[in-house]
Amino acid sequence: MLQPRTEPGRRFTDVAESHVEKFAARAEAHDRAGNFPSENFAELAVSGALGAFVPESLGGLGLDSVRDWAVGLSRLGRADASTAIALNMHLGASRMLVGAWRGAVAGGDEAGAARSEALLKAIASGNFVICATATEAGTDFLRPKTTATRVSDGWRLDGRKIFATLSPIANLYVMNLRVPSEEGDQMGFAFVPADTPGLVPQDDWDALGMRASGSQSVVLDGCVIPDGTIQIAGPWGSWTPPVLMGRTLANLTLLGAFVGVAEAARQLAIDAAQQQSKPKFGGPIAGHSGVQHLVGEIEIDFAAASAILVDTANELDAFLEHQGSRTPSLDDAHECMKQFQCAKWIVNEKTIAVVSKAMDVVGGGAYLSAHPLSRLYRDVRAAPFMQPFAPNEAREYIGQVALGRLPDG
Amino acid sequence: MLQPRTEPGRRFTDVAESHVEKFAARAEAHDRAGNFPSENFAELAVSGALGAFVPESLGGLGLDSVRDWAVGLSRLGRADASTAIALNMHLGASRMLVGAWRGAVAGGDEAGAARSEALLKAIASGNFVICATATEAGTDFLRPKTTATRVSDGWRLDGRKIFATLSPIANLYVMNLRVPSEEGDQMGFAFVPADTPGLVPQDDWDALGMRASGSQSVVLDGCVIPDGTIQIAGPWGSWTPPVLMGRTLANLTLLGAFVGVAEAARQLAIDAAQQQSKPKFGGPIAGHSGVQHLVGEIEIDFAAASAILVDTANELDAFLEHQGSRTPSLDDAHECMKQFQCAKWIVNEKTIAVVSKAMDVVGGGAYLSAHPLSRLYRDVRAAPFMQPFAPNEAREYIGQVALGRLPDG
Amino acid sequence: MLQPRTEPGRRFTDVAESHVEKFAARAEAHDRAGNFPSENFAELAVSGALGAFVPESLGGLGLDSVRDWAVGLSRLGRADASTAIALNMHLGASRMLVGAWRGAVAGGDEAGAARSEALLKAIASGNFVICATATEAGTDFLRPKTTATRVSDGWRLDGRKIFATLSPIANLYVMNLRVPSEEGDQMGFAFVPADTPGLVPQDDWDALGMRASGSQSVVLDGCVIPDGTIQIAGPWGSWTPPVLMGRTLANLTLLGAFVGVAEAARQLAIDAAQQQSKPKFGGPIAGHSGVQHLVGEIEIDFAAASAILVDTANELDAFLEHQGSRTPSLDDAHECMKQFQCAKWIVNEKTIAVVSKAMDVVGGGAYLSAHPLSRLYRDVRAAPFMQPFAPNEAREYIGQVALGRLPDG
Amino acid sequence: MLQPRTEPGRRFTDVAESHVEKFAARAEAHDRAGNFPSENFAELAVSGALGAFVPESLGGLGLDSVRDWAVGLSRLGRADASTAIALNMHLGASRMLVGAWRGAVAGGDEAGAARSEALLKAIASGNFVICATATEAGTDFLRPKTTATRVSDGWRLDGRKIFATLSPIANLYVMNLRVPSEEGDQMGFAFVPADTPGLVPQDDWDALGMRASGSQSVVLDGCVIPDGTIQIAGPWGSWTPPVLMGRTLANLTLLGAFVGVAEAARQLAIDAAQQQSKPKFGGPIAGHSGVQHLVGEIEIDFAAASAILVDTANELDAFLEHQGSRTPSLDDAHECMKQFQCAKWIVNEKTIAVVSKAMDVVGGGAYLSAHPLSRLYRDVRAAPFMQPFAPNEAREYIGQVALGRLPDG
Repeated sequence: MLQPRTEPGRRFTDVAESHVEKFAARAEAHDRAGNFPSENFAELAVSGALGAFVPESLGGLGLDSVRDWAVGLSRLGRADASTAIALNMHLGASRMLVGAWRGAVAGGDEAGAARSEALLKAIASGNFVICATATEAGTDFLRPKTTATRVSDGWRLDGRKIFATLSPIANLYVMNLRVPSEEGDQMGFAFVPADTPGLVPQDDWDALGMRASGSQSVVLDGCVIPDGTIQIAGPWGSWTPPVLMGRTLANLTLLGAFVGVAEAARQLAIDAAQQQSKPKFGGPIAGHSGVQHLVGEIEIDFAAASAILVDTANELDAFLEHQGSRTPSLDDAHECMKQFQCAKWIVNEKTIAVVSKAMDVVGGGAYLSAHPLSRLYRDVRAAPFMQPFAPNEAREYIGQVALGRLPDG
Repeated sequence: MLQPRTEPGRRFTDVAESHVEKFAARAEAHDRAGNFPSENFAELAVSGALGAFVPESLGGLGLDSVRDWAVGLSRLGRADASTAIALNMHLGASRMLVGAWRGAVAGGDEAGAARSEALLKAIASGNFVICATATEAGTDFLRPKTTATRVSDGWRLDGRKIFATLSPIANLYVMNLRVPSEEGDQMGFAFVPADTPGLVPQDDWDALGMRASGSQSVVLDGCVIPDGTIQIAGPWGSWTPPVLMGRTLANLTLLGAFVGVAEAARQLAIDAAQQQSKPKFGGPIAGHSGVQHLVGEIEIDFAAASAILVDTANELDAFLEHQGSRTPSLDDAHECMKQFQCAKWIVNEKTIAVVSKAMDVVGGGAYLSAHPLSRLYRDVRAAPFMQPFAPNEAREYIGQVALGRLPDG
Repeated sequence: MLQPRTEPGRRFTDVAESHVEKFAARAEAHDRAGNFPSENFAELAVSGALGAFVPESLGGLGLDSVRDWAVGLSRLGRADASTAIALNMHLGASRMLVGAWRGAVAGGDEAGAARSEALLKAIASGNFVICATATEAGTDFLRPKTTATRVSDGWRLDGRKIFATLSPIANLYVMNLRVPSEEGDQMGFAFVPADTPGLVPQDDWDALGMRASGSQSVVLDGCVIPDGTIQIAGPWGSWTPPVLMGRTLANLTLLGAFVGVAEAARQLAIDAAQQQSKPKFGGPIAGHSGVQHLVGEIEIDFAAASAILVDTANELDAFLEHQGSRTPSLDDAHECMKQFQCAKWIVNEKTIAVVSKAMDVVGGGAYLSAHPLSRLYRDVRAAPFMQPFAPNEAREYIGQVALGRLPDG
Repeated sequence: MLQPRTEPGRRFTDVAESHVEKFAARAEAHDRAGNFPSENFAELAVSGALGAFVPESLGGLGLDSVRDWAVGLSRLGRADASTAIALNMHLGASRMLVGAWRGAVAGGDEAGAARSEALLKAIASGNFVICATATEAGTDFLRPKTTATRVSDGWRLDGRKIFATLSPIANLYVMNLRVPSEEGDQMGFAFVPADTPGLVPQDDWDALGMRASGSQSVVLDGCVIPDGTIQIAGPWGSWTPPVLMGRTLANLTLLGAFVGVAEAARQLAIDAAQQQSKPKFGGPIAGHSGVQHLVGEIEIDFAAASAILVDTANELDAFLEHQGSRTPSLDDAHECMKQFQCAKWIVNEKTIAVVSKAMDVVGGGAYLSAHPLSRLYRDVRAAPFMQPFAPNEAREYIGQVALGRLPDG
């Protein structure tokens, strides 16, 4: 079981741990119905998990370490992976808000600081949930088709986001979009209140797994948002250091959720091996060498997944601390992403293997819908799709960075 | 695409091919509902597929080759894996019946020959379906707990079979059971009409995949069957050559169904690669090297799975032809099983990989319930559980046979 | 053990088998010294193996089947992989000569037929060895740097070939080269007698494995060959159907040599498991489950490698028979190469794994130079480098062909 | 590149780094000749590396962290794996001596402390090298056949050790042996000066790789050592916590050497990709996607190996610190060993893969004896054989520990 290394990380992990039993008990029903576990999030609000990144002075847990973020998420992944990845969206967005608040305070921007502070307090109190949505059909993150057009009183947004995890309870959306300008298309990030007219969730989430994550589509049909609610991040279609680091930070900790899934599967296998007997073996199947070999392979796979997650997150924490408030170079940002992608590849491969081998230990019973492993097998398969980069791009990207041939976009 | 090598095999394959379009169109609905595709079997009755093994002189297709059996099944696997594996149960049982008929004819047992002939004609006409059921919870094939007890007018059967694929439309069950005797427990095979009082299908099939296979549990609660309907095969818990060969023959061709699943997945990936575009790639993703690498890996995996199935089935056909009506030695029977287990390991591993990589080619859309790949991913995972031997036993068994240390049971 | 399917194939296999004991006994010494096993080839001349492809009417074995070619080679691979791959070069070249002879006969070219016939008879009598060399540093097969320049009395050749396996005893070299012309550079094939002035073998073969294959470099420094000894095959840098099919046919059967290496390694593992004991196991290590698992994996890997080789060679035999004397389309030629590449990938991966796992069964003793497995481990690693395509190109190529995007070159 | 976490670890790593260039330059010649790199060890004596574990107060580097031990060793592994693993033997033994000295000081054993202190000072000055040898043919570590027999003036030793790495320059041997007693055979550890009559190194080291490690056999033929030079560790054939922890500590850091080998291979691949060109690619092969994919896979494999080594060593450091001078429970000792075995499995698999894929990037040139990769490929294959546990035992052992079924021995 992964362990945190900081005191706020310990708090966050303990809070996460406190939800495990109830969330696990609800997971099957939500999976079957494919509905969003709102009661889980009501409890996460009460326990303070939603305010994990809010500084203690503003009522939060004061989490800072990326490693400990992933560790806490692994606890929730053990219970219900849908809830874990949905929470991660909000945590990533709220972590960026803390950065904005610190920047405003440091820069003497009192109004900005006050706005952020209010939002952070609302988050800490569990009353405000942010959904960061970044995916569209037929394109990639750097080339959103959703477009912001200048109108008299601000911006008009049109487009369609998919895989908008957590959206059923979001108060605010953060999303990437295309902003046409005289210098060419720009990449913008918009902050869109959930009750903006024209923003229409589609209630269409029906997938192989992660069925309780609320990852529906969201249509933007002439939504109008005021001036000042779009930040320009650079040219559409090109990596900039902040955007690239943002992608790493928003997605790396998802791996924690999947390590948690593998942990749950591993435990189910060990329990089954000790409890199931067969006349052929004259006792528990745990005494059979074939089962011991499989459990040995599960341990190896799990150790590999855990280690690379912990090691990569440790390195990222060290880099962020060393970097402080300075923007990293594009080289460094690609190096961070490369390390994340290596970790993602191994975690994907090994956690899927752990769940699959756990099924082999349990036997045919694990194939039944009533067995939790049949859900874990579907949930854990979501991991490779997670952006950036899916298996059809990851190896090439990693190789390019290692060879000093940084991709533009 | 696998090709048959005999003329009856070509007929069977063509018949199977003729069902592909309709079965594929129905697959999603049956998968969602988890109900048995009775209309598929009505059509298989009409087309003659149910009578594949019945000699032409009795109205069947005259199929004999194991290879071609697997090839035909691969066509159905492309369309609907549940239907393919359900049909396989019946085909295996009807193939044994042909053997019994040949034996009776050769041995001058006119009454026996007549009984078998009537049954085979009924099978050829599509009016008679046999369900071979061999699995129970908490034990293995050689050690069934279901028990036949002597009663005045025959045998009384008590027990519970699980994973009774095809049972919703069965007219007759063939099942293994324990027959206590003075020389110790014996392994028996009983033939039980589906309408025997006390035989109660449980309608409880609800699984990760193969949801249309009707693999429900069947309870036997004091079923009484007449004398002469149980055959003793040897001691309970020990391999005998016929039982061991029977296991190989009943299960090897299931691999054809899974190769069919992989074939369908491969095609979905190729089609998607040619049809989906991304601005990043300036055209179809088929032009992107990352996609080409994945498709290359799919081809390699598919070729490995196909080749070992064809090669193993060819070898088995040659062995059976060489063996004729003689019972093989236990060594030879283990050698056949070992080769089948090697093929099963590779086919399992590679077909699962093909489906998973096909999902990687397609991207996140493949994770949606509406996409056929999300069903194929669940269906194909059934394969490793199939008996004998699951992954917790296969490598040890294969190694023992290769080392000349034949397992007793 | 692979089995031939034709009568000439049986003859060739028997001849190959007859050399196994002696070649195996000499393998270690040649490996240590890194010298060419001339005495092996003297014996291959006597046994008729060098004339395997020569028609029976001209004194040869009349081999035709690609499968049986690979099968015979696997026997030699069991004994000494260096000898096997060296022989393969000659066999591939002599097979092409048979084609030329048939073409000349069919076309009524009596002079050509006579020339070929004389050569084939010399080959059948074991007095003539052909070395096909196709590799150069820093380029690929389709883009040789070795150049043929027009001179008054024929052609002048300059360049350097590497990995010229078999060259120490070659009477004739066949090699690809660049032929500048007015329509742009052409790809030519030259036939160069080994005693041509300016052709200088470098005696520089010193490699990790295949140390007895004589794969030295050969320098061409102003060699002059007469008119009519260069055939133009198409543009330099582009695939044409005959060149592509030629590559498939020249290299596919090499896989047989490596399957033979794996077969030898598998046997060494099984023998060791039965002969080695440990107090810990209270008897032979074959009784230990960990060893049984490894041997099981060896069986699986070996079965996968064997099956895909046999299946691919069967398919190629069927294609060639169907094709007859017609030149295949470029599409079909790429399809053949694609299937070969899939087989190569699996055979490479699995045969290397077999040797490595055999070492694991044997234990530390297998790491000693005196143990044959330490040689097999080095020999078998040659396989992935073999052309075309190495692992840095194979997956992309296979994917391109599967996606209908045939590479030009 | 792995980084140390303590100040003494930084010193050790810097010292190790200082040797890289010279050791790397000598590696090929020692590999070819198969002789021991005495000049490397003369330089390691001068630099202080031999005294790495000696406390600063006694003139050493004061190394304590297992992680940093492994990190330093990885630097040497980059240069010459033979030297790295030979040094590791001495470091492990000298680390135990530091423990003995601390125990003597804490226990008020002035004479014992003085003896240890003198030895440690000799080690720090580079004048004393210890060879820990633990392997014999046909048995395992817990069941040595080498036997100590009581004689009037001490003990008489008879037996044969193999794989006695570092022995060519050893001043003292530490070895496990069987000590018959009235309570049954005991496991003893003897300290035998290298110049003891009857101790005869065999100069027989000739292996696939690690050819400069001096891992010859050593015969003990009636060696007599005085009373007090054998420590009894528990029953022959059974694990005790100190023996088990000793095995973990003596072998875990070897993984650092192999990570170093992989690091060197990775760099060779990247350099080659940037320097080699092909007409086909119109420039360096680094621009070719197939090469980028392979380099991406190398990065992933290398990251997995590095991470699990660092993570496992971190955990072990934390455990040792928490444990202090207390003997761990057998459960905890097995848990440590299990984690080491998981790390060993992954490091073995991934570092071998890195070297092999680096060869694929470089192409056929990497297969030549003159290319360093052909040596790295042989060296890195030594890793799986390293005790305990080899691949024929590791998975079962790990599974047993995870299932709470601790093996006795």
